[in-house]
Amino acid sequence: MMKKLAFILFACSLSASLFSQQSDSAIVHNLFITSLKSDAAYENLRYLTQTIGPRLAGSPQSIAAVEWAKQVMQQMGVDTVYLQPCKVRNWQRGGKETAIVTSTLRGSKNLNICSYGGSVGTGKEGITAEVVEVKSFEEVEKLGRKGIEGRIVFFDRPADPAFFYTGHSYGSAVDQRIHGASVAAKYGALASIVRSVTLARDEFPHTGVMHYDESIAKIPSIALSTLDAELLSTWLKSDPKLKLFLQTNCHELPEADSYNLIGELKGTDFPDQYIVVGGHIDSWDITQGAHDDGAGVVQSIEVLRLFNEMGIKPRHTVRAVIYMDEEMAQRGAHKYLEEVKRKNEKHIAAIESDGGGFTPIGFSIDASADNFSTIKSFQKYFEEFDMHEFIKGGSGVDVGPLKELGIPLMGLMDDGQRYFDYHHAASDTFDKVNCRELELGAAAMASMVYLLDK
Amino acid sequence: MMKKLAFILFACSLSASLFSQQSDSAIVHNLFITSLKSDAAYENLRYLTQTIGPRLAGSPQSIAAVEWAKQVMQQMGVDTVYLQPCKVRNWQRGGKETAIVTSTLRGSKNLNICSYGGSVGTGKEGITAEVVEVKSFEEVEKLGRKGIEGRIVFFDRPADPAFFYTGHSYGSAVDQRIHGASVAAKYGALASIVRSVTLARDEFPHTGVMHYDESIAKIPSIALSTLDAELLSTWLKSDPKLKLFLQTNCHELPEADSYNLIGELKGTDFPDQYIVVGGHIDSWDITQGAHDDGAGVVQSIEVLRLFNEMGIKPRHTVRAVIYMDEEMAQRGAHKYLEEVKRKNEKHIAAIESDGGGFTPIGFSIDASADNFSTIKSFQKYFEEFDMHEFIKGGSGVDVGPLKELGIPLMGLMDDGQRYFDYHHAASDTFDKVNCRELELGAAAMASMVYLLDK
Repeated sequence: MMKKLAFILFACSLSASLFSQQSDSAIVHNLFITSLKSDAAYENLRYLTQTIGPRLAGSPQSIAAVEWAKQVMQQMGVDTVYLQPCKVRNWQRGGKETAIVTSTLRGSKNLNICSYGGSVGTGKEGITAEVVEVKSFEEVEKLGRKGIEGRIVFFDRPADPAFFYTGHSYGSAVDQRIHGASVAAKYGALASIVRSVTLARDEFPHTGVMHYDESIAKIPSIALSTLDAELLSTWLKSDPKLKLFLQTNCHELPEADSYNLIGELKGTDFPDQYIVVGGHIDSWDITQGAHDDGAGVVQSIEVLRLFNEMGIKPRHTVRAVIYMDEEMAQRGAHKYLEEVKRKNEKHIAAIESDGGGFTPIGFSIDASADNFSTIKSFQKYFEEFDMHEFIKGGSGVDVGPLKELGIPLMGLMDDGQRYFDYHHAASDTFDKVNCRELELGAAAMASMVYLLDK
Repeated sequence: MMKKLAFILFACSLSASLFSQQSDSAIVHNLFITSLKSDAAYENLRYLTQTIGPRLAGSPQSIAAVEWAKQVMQQMGVDTVYLQPCKVRNWQRGGKETAIVTSTLRGSKNLNICSYGGSVGTGKEGITAEVVEVKSFEEVEKLGRKGIEGRIVFFDRPADPAFFYTGHSYGSAVDQRIHGASVAAKYGALASIVRSVTLARDEFPHTGVMHYDESIAKIPSIALSTLDAELLSTWLKSDPKLKLFLQTNCHELPEADSYNLIGELKGTDFPDQYIVVGGHIDSWDITQGAHDDGAGVVQSIEVLRLFNEMGIKPRHTVRAVIYMDEEMAQRGAHKYLEEVKRKNEKHIAAIESDGGGFTPIGFSIDASADNFSTIKSFQKYFEEFDMHEFIKGGSGVDVGPLKELGIPLMGLMDDGQRYFDYHHAASDTFDKVNCRELELGAAAMASMVYLLDK
C-alpha cells in the first residue's frame, strides 16, 4: 500500500514537472514567435535614433529621449513609470573639429577625426606639429622626451582581428584611446591622435571615453578614422617631417541634471522583489546610437510589452531600467544602486543588453556557482533559437554595480562580428539594425525574465 | 607480460589518438584565426560584385565572372583550373519595366516591379486591366473565370514571419511566385503580380525563377516591392476598380554556351577521389548578388587558399566547383554530375555555400545514418566559434544532384535572419557583407573539408 501511494505520488510529481516543463518551453517558444511577428521595438528604435538622434548625457536630446521613452511605456499600459534623477558629467564637443595633414611631397589633406569623450580641446588657434607614430606605450617610453616633446603622438596599433569574439579584438587596442594622451603627455607631447578602435576599414572616426592621469598635463585626445590612419602612416613613411594641424573645441561644463527612467510590471506575489532588464539611453553625440545602445533600450521596453501582449503576469516585479550616462561615467548606474540601497529594495537578478541589436547567441552570466547552474539549466529552452552560449563572464557596465547585492547579473550576448564596425561612430544608424535580430534579443531577455520569475 | 604489452599498446594508441585529436582541434582553430586575419575572400567579393556586377547565366557578364574566377585561382597557385562547358537557358529581361497604378480617387503612381525569371513579357503596348487581390490559390479558384478573366491577379500573401528559420518564412509564400501565373491564367487572367517574397518592408522588387504549366497560356509574372504591395492593397480597398498598367519586355532566346569552373588542390594519397566545395557564380540580372551567391563563390575559392596558406596538403583532391545557372535551371549542377559519371570520378563528400555570407552557425547534412554520426562528431571542433547546428536536412541545389552517388552532402548554414531581406533584389550589394562573417564561413567549410579528408 505504501509502495502504491509512493508510486502515485511519484507519478503525480513527474507529471506535474513534465507539464510545467512543457509549459515553460511553450511559453519561451511563444515569446520568441510573438516577438518575430511584432515590429514594436523596431519602430521605437526608428523614433529614438532617427527623430531624437544623438543623445549624449547632459544634452537636451538625452532628456527628450527619456521623456519619449516614458511616454512609450505609459502608452503601453505599464504599471508604474517614473524618472530617477541623477547628476551626469557634461562634456561637450563644441562644434566642428578639423585635422589637416600637410606634406611637402603630397600637399594637404583633411582627415576624419573626432575628440574622445572627456578630452580637452586644442583652443581656437589649434595645434600644428610633427607627428611621431607608435604602436605601443613602450615605444613612447623608449622615444622619451627627446622623441616626443613638442610633437603629436599617433597611436596606430590596430585592433587585432585574430579573435573570434570581437570584444577581445577591441580590448587589444582600446588602451591607446583611454590612456594614450597621458602616456604621451608625460613626455611633452602636444596632442594624442589614435587609430579608431574598430575592426572596420572605414572613413568614420570612432569616439569613446578617455581618462586623464590627473598628475600629468591634459592634452587633446583625438580619434582618427582607420582609413585616414593608414593614409597618415603611409605619408609619414615618405615624409617623417610632415605637419599635422588639429583644431578642436571640446570642454567640460559643471555637471548637469539628468535621469534614469524606470518602468515596472508589478509582481503578483512579490511586488517588492525586482528583476531588472536594462540598457542605456545616452549615446555619443556623433551617432544615432542604434546598436549602442538604442537596441538595449527598446529591447528592455519590449520585455514589458511582450509580457503584456502574452498576458504573462510576473510573480516578481519586472523593472525596465533605462540608464543614463553609460558612455561617460555610469552615473545613472551608480545612482540606481544608491536608490536600491536607500529603499532597501530586494533584487532577484539583472539583465543588461548593451552588445547591439544583433542575433542573440546566449548570456554572459556573473553569478554564484549555484545560481549559474540554475541559469545554465535554462539553456535548453533557448537552443531552438540557436542560443547556445550560456557562459560564465561579465554582465554589463550598467548592471555591474548591483554585484554588491550578490544577485545574478547577466549580459545578453549577441553575434558581435559587426558590433565594433559601428561602435561609437556616425555609422551606427537605424538601418544597420535588422528588425528580426532586434526582436529576437528582446524575446531572449523576456524569456530569461520569465524563467527567473518562476 | 602480455598484460604489460597490452597496456603499452593501449597507452600508445591512446596517446596517438589524443595527439591527433588535439592536432585536429588546433588545425581547425588555426583555419578560423587565419581566415579572420585575411581579407582575400572579401576583396574577391568586392571585385565580383562591384566590378563585374550582375551576371545572369547566359549573359556576357557571367562569362566574364568565370574568366575572372579562373584567373584568381590560377594566381593562387591552385594545381588545376579548368572550365567545364555546359548549356544554359538564356532568358533576358529586355530593358526597362513599368507599372503604373491609376485610381480616379488618388491619381497615378509608378510601382517598383520586375519580371520573374522565365516570364514572358507583356508586349510593347503593355497590359492595362483591373486588379483582383488574393492571398491564396484557393481564392483564385473560388473567384473562378467570372472573377479573374481579363484582370490582373495580385497575389499578396506575405511571407509568414513566425518562424525562426527564415527559409520557412520564404517557403510559406514562394508558391505565389513559382506557380501564381499559371494558376491565374487558368481562369483567364492577363497577368500575375506578386508581393515580393521577402521579410523586408522595402522598395525593392525581389525576383526569382517562375514556372509555367505548359498546358496553360503563358501570362506575364511580375514581382512587386513589399511597400508597393501595401500601397496597391490600400488603394484597392477604396477603389476596387482602379487600373494597373504593366509593360515588360522579357523573352527567352535559344540556350547559350556557358561554363562551370573547377579548381583543384591535388590529393597526396587519393588524387582521384574528390571532396567538393561549391557555390554558384550566376546571379539575377538586377543585383550584384553579393550574398546570393558571390559569397559562396569566394568562400569556395578561399577554402583552397586557406589550405595553401596553412600548408595543408589534402590526402584527397579538394575541388572548388563554381557552378553556373543555379538561379534558372541548375544546368551547371546537372552537367557536373554528368561529367562525374562519364569519367567515373569517385567523390567523398560535397559542401555547398548558398545561404549568404553571414556568420556560420553549422551544417545541414544529408547523409546516411553512419556518415551523419561521423560528421556530427566533428561538431565539437566548431563550438568554439558558436557553430552548434549540425542537423539532418537538405544540402543545396547545386550539390543536390550528387545525391545519387550516395555520398554525404552538406550545406553551410548561416545566421539567416537577414538573408531574405536582400535575396534576389538590387539591395544584395557588397556593403551588406561583413568581411569577418564571410571569412568565418570560408573557415567553416575549410575545416569541414579538412576533417572529412582525414
